[in-house]
Amino acid sequence: MPTVFPEDSVGLVSPQTLHFSEPLALVSGRTLPEYQLVIETYGELNATASNAVLICHALSGHHHAAGYNSPDERKPGWWDSCIGPGKAIDTRKFFVVALNNLGGCNGSTGPTSLDPSTGRIYGSDFPVVTVEDWVNSQARLADRLGINQWAAVVGGSLGGMQALQWTISYPERVRHCLCIASAPKLSAQNIAFNEVARQAILSDPEFLGGHFQEQGVIPRHGLRLARMVGHITYLSDDAMGEKFGRDRKAEKLNYDLYNVEFQVESYLRYQGEEFSTRFDANTYLLMTKALDYFDPASAHDGDLVRTLAGVKADFCLMSFTTDWRFSPARSREIVDALIAAKKNVCYLEIDAPQGHDAFLMPIPRYLQAFSAYMNRISV
Amino acid sequence: MPTVFPEDSVGLVSPQTLHFSEPLALVSGRTLPEYQLVIETYGELNATASNAVLICHALSGHHHAAGYNSPDERKPGWWDSCIGPGKAIDTRKFFVVALNNLGGCNGSTGPTSLDPSTGRIYGSDFPVVTVEDWVNSQARLADRLGINQWAAVVGGSLGGMQALQWTISYPERVRHCLCIASAPKLSAQNIAFNEVARQAILSDPEFLGGHFQEQGVIPRHGLRLARMVGHITYLSDDAMGEKFGRDRKAEKLNYDLYNVEFQVESYLRYQGEEFSTRFDANTYLLMTKALDYFDPASAHDGDLVRTLAGVKADFCLMSFTTDWRFSPARSREIVDALIAAKKNVCYLEIDAPQGHDAFLMPIPRYLQAFSAYMNRISV
Repeated sequence: MPTVFPEDSVGLVSPQTLHFSEPLALVSGRTLPEYQLVIETYGELNATASNAVLICHALSGHHHAAGYNSPDERKPGWWDSCIGPGKAIDTRKFFVVALNNLGGCNGSTGPTSLDPSTGRIYGSDFPVVTVEDWVNSQARLADRLGINQWAAVVGGSLGGMQALQWTISYPERVRHCLCIASAPKLSAQNIAFNEVARQAILSDPEFLGGHFQEQGVIPRHGLRLARMVGHITYLSDDAMGEKFGRDRKAEKLNYDLYNVEFQVESYLRYQGEEFSTRFDANTYLLMTKALDYFDPASAHDGDLVRTLAGVKADFCLMSFTTDWRFSPARSREIVDALIAAKKNVCYLEIDAPQGHDAFLMPIPRYLQAFSAYMNRISV
Repeated sequence: MPTVFPEDSVGLVSPQTLHFSEPLALVSGRTLPEYQLVIETYGELNATASNAVLICHALSGHHHAAGYNSPDERKPGWWDSCIGPGKAIDTRKFFVVALNNLGGCNGSTGPTSLDPSTGRIYGSDFPVVTVEDWVNSQARLADRLGINQWAAVVGGSLGGMQALQWTISYPERVRHCLCIASAPKLSAQNIAFNEVARQAILSDPEFLGGHFQEQGVIPRHGLRLARMVGHITYLSDDAMGEKFGRDRKAEKLNYDLYNVEFQVESYLRYQGEEFSTRFDANTYLLMTKALDYFDPASAHDGDLVRTLAGVKADFCLMSFTTDWRFSPARSREIVDALIAAKKNVCYLEIDAPQGHDAFLMPIPRYLQAFSAYMNRISV
């Protein structure tokens, strides 16, 4: 319980809620009549507003990326290892903005919000949102904050897709794009895993067509399963082996169908259980759909080089050797297209055993490279 | 509808049911008071019973490995590509025995059978069976058929584990072990995927504590999910990409949470649906548990070399480059231990894009190597 926060922490932070009353037209053809975004900011915006960095979150992330929301918060924000005074994204230099995306379940307008047109909770009636929609909503957020151009847009995984989309949708508004452990589009296998997660939620009898919240229930089993299968894809085979191997829960095997025998089963069940108490099932569906739909090159017959022809940002891509969700080869697809499009790009493949989750972890070489790149950005 | 069967087919075959009235003591400590095994045989046992080959099946397999059970059967047995006159396991030379394992749902005693002690369907009261138990039951089957020693015991995946266990449990009774696309034990990741499948079944409200059959229901959603997640692990990322890529179900995207957008989703749903109508949920649980428990080296402090010290068989191991369920590295663990234990072993890593499922497919180099090995066996 840190009543004195670590020196390299942004310390105590409070979220802010911004309301947007201008309707937002979505890629799906639907329109959000109005919405709110919850954000946190760290550091100070300079006089020319040239030092702003946008943090885009991944599937289950949110606006609380660094520091502590209360003195007795057990764990800091989800990317605290990378954001703070003296850290890779140095809050003495940068003004950092983190938000919860539309469709989220941490305060921004999403399936758990009231639909102003009906007065009922949106539930599964909340419109499908895409990476492009998020970037459009983030551009309005930038306008609101007086930020004409981001010094950098930064994200890992689905967050990296948003960073990449920014350079395509708003080339003049991004100087640097840091796209970490990401991909230019999902593979069939990626989509397949998402579909299993969705089916787990949709086939839970307590999903109730997506209007479970009004009935006071939660499709807990479906969410648990979705998280369990997701979690396996976030870790490498090696990392799981290292962490659990075939370690048993008890010395003696039970030989029964119901109880866990191995630590890894117990760990997965815990992860699923914990997640099912804090995350919204409709948001989970939306996030996996946003991942599936992301494919910026589809607007140019699949030609990523052409897709990136108009971008103006400089790029930093990083990947992790044991990531099999978005392997280094997926990052290299982007790197190769950027090179072919004659853009400035630096790429680092980091030797790390942690799999996809590595982008959230304080891996020294990763943090060093991240810092080095951010330090070179002039503001 | 082949009324004239292909020339290299074993043709029309009929299963036989063998009853065993001597109780079988199981690894779990429980005992099966009596049981039956369903088998198919192809070819003729020679006078000295020296030409018998046992086929061990994988997770969802059964006794119908080759040929046709009726003239209008749409597809032949599950390993028809490898068993028949002139095929890798040549039925002009060998007498081939395929069975449905204990705990199965294709006719051998399992969860869908009546428990003689209660007169009720076993359901989830059927005892947990291990690879060792299966091999013991198969040894009794060999006794019944007058086979003192198998010319070869052959299997892929979980079937390969049985082939390996045979050489350990009954070293005098196996001349050749063909262990294909297998592993000496599951990794933490393998167990994790099994646990997701089990949780999908166990959390289906229609599982009813494993006694759904008596209530006339099926935990269909759970089985569907279990198969969907399993199926992803049977295919390589490349194979899925090749087969489906990001091909859409319809030209225009729907942007909705319920309908499939991509062919791969549709394919997975179909696979899950089809499986859920033909497979028993309790059997699925049992099979995944048998996989988890398999770890012959655990009896020797994890030392596989020591575990294999007493085996007498010659070995042929094969693996497939894109198999990520049981990668080539897992086969090499067995190969390396056999070499260290000074056993005869040949090993082939086959370049194939199909992933784990490759062992079921007519891949020319695989069939050639398989044939070459089987042809060298003297009977």
